[in-house]
Amino acid sequence: MSLLNMPLIMQDTAAIEGDMGMLWMLISGILVFLMQAGFTLVESGFTRSKNVVNIAMKNVLDIAVGSLVFWFIGYSLMYGDTNGWIGWSGLMYNQGPADLFFQTVFCATAATIVSGAIAGRTKYTTYIIFSLIMTAVIYPIAGGWQWNGDGWLAQMGFIDFAGSSIVHAVGGWAALVGAALVGPRLGKYMDGKAVNIPGHNKLLATLGVFILWFGWFGFNGGSQLAWGGDDAVGASMVVLVTNLAASAGAVGALFLSWFKYKKPNLDMTLNGALAGLVGITAGCGNMTEGGAIIAGFIAGLIVVFSMEFVEQKLKIDDAVGAFSVHGIAGFWGTIVIGLWGVDGDTGIGLLNGGGSAQFITQLIGALAYAVWALVTSFIFFYVLKKTLGLRVTEKEEIEGLDLSEHGALAYPGKRQREIED
Amino acid sequence: MSLLNMPLIMQDTAAIEGDMGMLWMLISGILVFLMQAGFTLVESGFTRSKNVVNIAMKNVLDIAVGSLVFWFIGYSLMYGDTNGWIGWSGLMYNQGPADLFFQTVFCATAATIVSGAIAGRTKYTTYIIFSLIMTAVIYPIAGGWQWNGDGWLAQMGFIDFAGSSIVHAVGGWAALVGAALVGPRLGKYMDGKAVNIPGHNKLLATLGVFILWFGWFGFNGGSQLAWGGDDAVGASMVVLVTNLAASAGAVGALFLSWFKYKKPNLDMTLNGALAGLVGITAGCGNMTEGGAIIAGFIAGLIVVFSMEFVEQKLKIDDAVGAFSVHGIAGFWGTIVIGLWGVDGDTGIGLLNGGGSAQFITQLIGALAYAVWALVTSFIFFYVLKKTLGLRVTEKEEIEGLDLSEHGALAYPGKRQREIED
Amino acid sequence: MSLLNMPLIMQDTAAIEGDMGMLWMLISGILVFLMQAGFTLVESGFTRSKNVVNIAMKNVLDIAVGSLVFWFIGYSLMYGDTNGWIGWSGLMYNQGPADLFFQTVFCATAATIVSGAIAGRTKYTTYIIFSLIMTAVIYPIAGGWQWNGDGWLAQMGFIDFAGSSIVHAVGGWAALVGAALVGPRLGKYMDGKAVNIPGHNKLLATLGVFILWFGWFGFNGGSQLAWGGDDAVGASMVVLVTNLAASAGAVGALFLSWFKYKKPNLDMTLNGALAGLVGITAGCGNMTEGGAIIAGFIAGLIVVFSMEFVEQKLKIDDAVGAFSVHGIAGFWGTIVIGLWGVDGDTGIGLLNGGGSAQFITQLIGALAYAVWALVTSFIFFYVLKKTLGLRVTEKEEIEGLDLSEHGALAYPGKRQREIED
Repeated sequence: MSLLNMPLIMQDTAAIEGDMGMLWMLISGILVFLMQAGFTLVESGFTRSKNVVNIAMKNVLDIAVGSLVFWFIGYSLMYGDTNGWIGWSGLMYNQGPADLFFQTVFCATAATIVSGAIAGRTKYTTYIIFSLIMTAVIYPIAGGWQWNGDGWLAQMGFIDFAGSSIVHAVGGWAALVGAALVGPRLGKYMDGKAVNIPGHNKLLATLGVFILWFGWFGFNGGSQLAWGGDDAVGASMVVLVTNLAASAGAVGALFLSWFKYKKPNLDMTLNGALAGLVGITAGCGNMTEGGAIIAGFIAGLIVVFSMEFVEQKLKIDDAVGAFSVHGIAGFWGTIVIGLWGVDGDTGIGLLNGGGSAQFITQLIGALAYAVWALVTSFIFFYVLKKTLGLRVTEKEEIEGLDLSEHGALAYPGKRQREIED
Repeated sequence: MSLLNMPLIMQDTAAIEGDMGMLWMLISGILVFLMQAGFTLVESGFTRSKNVVNIAMKNVLDIAVGSLVFWFIGYSLMYGDTNGWIGWSGLMYNQGPADLFFQTVFCATAATIVSGAIAGRTKYTTYIIFSLIMTAVIYPIAGGWQWNGDGWLAQMGFIDFAGSSIVHAVGGWAALVGAALVGPRLGKYMDGKAVNIPGHNKLLATLGVFILWFGWFGFNGGSQLAWGGDDAVGASMVVLVTNLAASAGAVGALFLSWFKYKKPNLDMTLNGALAGLVGITAGCGNMTEGGAIIAGFIAGLIVVFSMEFVEQKLKIDDAVGAFSVHGIAGFWGTIVIGLWGVDGDTGIGLLNGGGSAQFITQLIGALAYAVWALVTSFIFFYVLKKTLGLRVTEKEEIEGLDLSEHGALAYPGKRQREIED
Repeated sequence: MSLLNMPLIMQDTAAIEGDMGMLWMLISGILVFLMQAGFTLVESGFTRSKNVVNIAMKNVLDIAVGSLVFWFIGYSLMYGDTNGWIGWSGLMYNQGPADLFFQTVFCATAATIVSGAIAGRTKYTTYIIFSLIMTAVIYPIAGGWQWNGDGWLAQMGFIDFAGSSIVHAVGGWAALVGAALVGPRLGKYMDGKAVNIPGHNKLLATLGVFILWFGWFGFNGGSQLAWGGDDAVGASMVVLVTNLAASAGAVGALFLSWFKYKKPNLDMTLNGALAGLVGITAGCGNMTEGGAIIAGFIAGLIVVFSMEFVEQKLKIDDAVGAFSVHGIAGFWGTIVIGLWGVDGDTGIGLLNGGGSAQFITQLIGALAYAVWALVTSFIFFYVLKKTLGLRVTEKEEIEGLDLSEHGALAYPGKRQREIED
C-alpha cells in the first residue's frame, strides 16, 4: 500500500509545487513587463520635452520587437543545446510558456538601457535595428553562458542570480559604446566643460523609479524560478534584500550628493536607488540583509562618482547615466558576491571554503560580459554608423526628434515648444 | 486502506488547486482594476487639457458606480439561473467573492470604453447614467449569453475566452452610437474635412497603454478561472500569446502608419498595441504563438484603416479611436478563432473537424453582440438625448468641461488655459 | 498504514498552504510598495509645482530610511517579546523574510501620511528625522499593541485587521500635529478666511489614487497573512469589500460635494475613495458587502465635512487633507466594527453576543492610538521645532522648496516657474 500511495502523494506535492513555481514566475514576469513603463518615464523625465515621443516609440518597440525576435530566435540561442558558448535547438524553441514569457521581458530590458544613453540625437531607424540585434543575438548568446546550465560560466561556478552582468552590465556597456559613437548632444560641452541639461519632468522620473523598483521584485524574486519549501523562503529573502539594497543605494547617493553639492539631490537619489537595485541583482540569492545593505550603499556611492567621471573625464554624453547605473553598478554587483556573498542555503560565506576562488570567478564573468558587450555593440553600432548613420542632422536635433523623426509633439499645446524646451 | 486514503489525497489536491485558482483569479482581478488608471491616462493623454478633470471623473465613477450596481444587480443578470438570454437569482447574488471581484472589474471596462469616444462635449450627468445602465444591464445580459454556462451562445459552442466581443466590442459599438448621437467636437470638421485635434500629453498616453497591456495579462490570463495542472500551463500560454499579439499589433500599425504618413507614428503604434490586445482577447485560449502574432499584426493594420474610415468617411468623431480599437478589433478577434484557432488542449485546428462550422458560430456571436450593443445603446442614448440632453452648450464646450462641468482645472497654473489648450 | 500516511498527507497539505500564504503575502507586500508612488502623485498633484521635487524626495526617503530602520530596530519593537506595551527581541530581529518585507512596506505608509499635510513649508532635514522616528519608534510600538499577539489591545479583543488605526489614524493624528506646529502656508489665510490653493496636476493626483486603490488590495488582502481553505475565501472577501467601500466612499463624497458646491468635484471624489479605503481597513475581515458599502459611504461623507472643519474652523492648513482622510476616516473605520461588524467566520453580528462590549473595545483602541500619536508626535515635532526648526524662511517658501531645499526644479522648462506656479 505504501508503495502505491507514497509516490502518488509525493508526485502530487511535486506537481503542486511546480504549479506554484509557475504562478510565481508568471506573476513576476508581469511585474517585469511594467518596468518598460518605468524606463520610459525615467528616460523621458530626465531628458527634454522635445524628445519624449521618440523615447516612447523606442521603449514600445523594444518590447514589441524584442518579444517577437526573442520568441523566434533568441530563446533558442540562449537556452538551446549549447557548446558552452552558443545554444541552438531550432527556431521558435522554448521550454514552456511561463519560462518563455519570463525570459522575454528580461530580454527587452537589456535593449532599453541603451535607449536612455543615446537619447536626443539618434536616428530612430538605426536604434530599432540595434534593438533588434540586441534582443535577437547579443543578449541571448551572453545570457546562455550562465543561465543555460551548460554554459561555460555556469560550469565555472559563476553566480549572477538575476542578471547584474547578464542584463544590466551588458546593456550598460552597450550604452557606453552607443553614446560614445553617436557623440554628445549639441550644447552638452561648451569650451570643454560639461553643461547640465536638466530633465523636463522629475515627477514622472520619480514615478518611473518607483515602477522600476516595484518591477524589480519580480525581476529578482522571479529568478528563483520556483516556489515551494525552501524556494518560497528563498524568493521572499530575495525580495527582502532587493528592497534593502535599493533603500541603501538611495541613502548612499543622497548623502554623497548632499555632501558634494550642499543640497539633497533628487536625480542622484533616484539613480542611487536604481544602482542599489542593479547592485543586488546578481547576488540577491547570496546575500544576508546586512551584506545587501552595504552592497547597495556602495553602489549608491559609486554611481555618483561614475556619472561625474563619464561626463567630465571621459566626456561621453550618457543622457540619463545609463552606463553608470547599469554598467558600473552591474559590474560591482557581480564582483561583490566574491567579497561577502554567502551560500544561499547554509548562510556560510562563499570565501570561507574557497579562499579567493569565487571572487576570481566573479571577476572573470564580469569582465567576459564587459568585453562581449563592448565588442559586439561596437561592431554593430560602427556598421550602422557607416551605413544608415547614427545621428540626425543638427537642424533635426535642435528641432527635437519628436517633430523631425515622428512628426508629432508630446505636449502639443499652442506655445508648448517655446515653454518646455 | 486505499479506499480510505486515496479520496483524501485527491480531495486535498483538488482543494489546493482550487485555492491556487482563487489566488490567480484574485491577483488577475487586481491587475485588471489598474486598467481603469490606464484608460484614464490614454483618454486624457489623447485629448485636450481642458477636459482632463471630466475624464478622470468619468473613469473614477465608472468603477465606483459599476462596482456597486454590478454587485447589486448585474452579477445576477449575468450568472444567475438563465433561460439562455437573461439570468436572475435575486439581488446581490454571487458565487463567491473572488469571482464577483474578478467579474466586477471586467464590467467597469465596458463602460469606460464609451467614455473616450464621446470625450470633450458630453454632459457629465448623462454619461454617469449611461455608465450605470451599461454596468447594470447592457453588459451583464450580453455577458451571460456566453459566460453563463447555460447561455445560448455558450450552448452553441461560441468561443470568447476573455471578451473580445463581450467586453470590448460591446463597449466599442456603444461608443460608436454615443459618438454619432452626441455629434463631433466643435472644430473637428471644417469644410467637410476632418481636422486633427492632437492629444495634450503623449507621455501619459504611453504610460496608459503600458498599464493597460500590464493589466491585460490579468484580463486574459485570469479568464482561465483556474490554476493547477493543465490550467497553469494554459494560463501561462494565454499570457504569452497576449504579449505576442500586442507586440505584433504595435509593429503592424507602426509599419502601416510609417508607410502611409512617412514617419513612424506614436498614436498609431499605441493603438496598434491595444488592437492586438483586443484582437487576442477572445482567442487567447485557442491560438498558437504564430497564430496570435498574425492575428495581432492584422488587428494593428485594421485599426489604422478603421480609424481613418470612421473619421473621414463616416465622419463620426470618436475622440480616441475607441470604436476602432475595441469594436472593430474585437469583432476581428472574435471571428479569427474560426479561421486559425486551435483546440486549447490538443492543438488541433478548430476547422479540421467541423469545416466552417466554428467560423459561422463565431460570426453569429460577433454579430449578436454588435446588434445588441447597437440597439440597446441607441435606445438609452436616444432617450437621454431627448430628456436630459447629451451635449453641453457651445460656450461650455469651448471653455472646456473641466471648468463648466466641474468648476476646476486639471493644471491650474496661472496661465495654464492659454498655454495647454 | 493510515497511521504512517495520514500525517504525511496532512503535513504536506499544511506545508503547501504555508507556501501559498507566503506567496500571497509577498505579492501583497509588492503591491503595497507601489502605494509609495501613489502617495507621491497624490501629494504632488494636490499641491503646487514648486514643491514637487521636495515631495518626491520625502517619499523616496520614507521608504528608503523606513526600510532600513524598521529592519534594524522597528520590527523588534513591534513583534519581539512584549510586556503588552513594547516588544524587544534584539536588533535585526524578524520572523522570516516575507513577513518582514510585508510589515516594512506598511511601516513606510504611516510616515508618508505626515508628508502630505505639511507640504510646501517644512525643512527637509527636519522631516527626514521625523520620518525616521516615526518608522523606528512611534509606529512600531503602537503596532505591537495589536498585531503582536501579546499586545494589550490584542488581548482585549480589539479588532484592527489591516490598520485603520494602527497605520492610518496614527499617521493622520501625527499629520495634524505637524501641520498645526509648522503653521499654514503663506497666503493660506487672508483676513481670517481660508484661501483655496489648487493642486498643480489633477491627472497625476487621479493616477495616484488609482495606484493607492490598487495597492490597497494588497494592504488589506495581504493582512489575512495566509492563503488556503478558509483563508483563501477570507482574503478574497477582504479584497471584495475593500473595493466596495472605496466605491461607496467616492460616491458619497461626490454626492455631498455636488450638493454643497453645485458641481461634481474631483478632489472630493478622490478623497472620498481614499476615505472609503481607510474606513474599511480595520473592518475588512468583519464586514458584509452591505456593511462595507455603508461604512465606506459614510466615510466619504465624513471626509468632506472634516476637511472643511479643519480648514475653516480649526484653521490648520493640512495641504492634502491627510488628517481627514487618514485620521478621521481611520477613527471611523475602527469604531464602525463595533456598530455593524460581523464575525468573519460565522457572519454573526459582533454585537449579538456581547452587547456594546465590542464597540467600547473599539473606542478604547481608537482613542489609545489617537492619544499615542498626538502625544509622541507633539513631543518630537516640538523638540525639532526648538532645535533644528520646522519651517523654511519666508523667502524660501515663496521661491519653492524645490529650488531652496534641493536646488532643482521639477519642470525646468525656460519659463516654467512663472507659468505653473
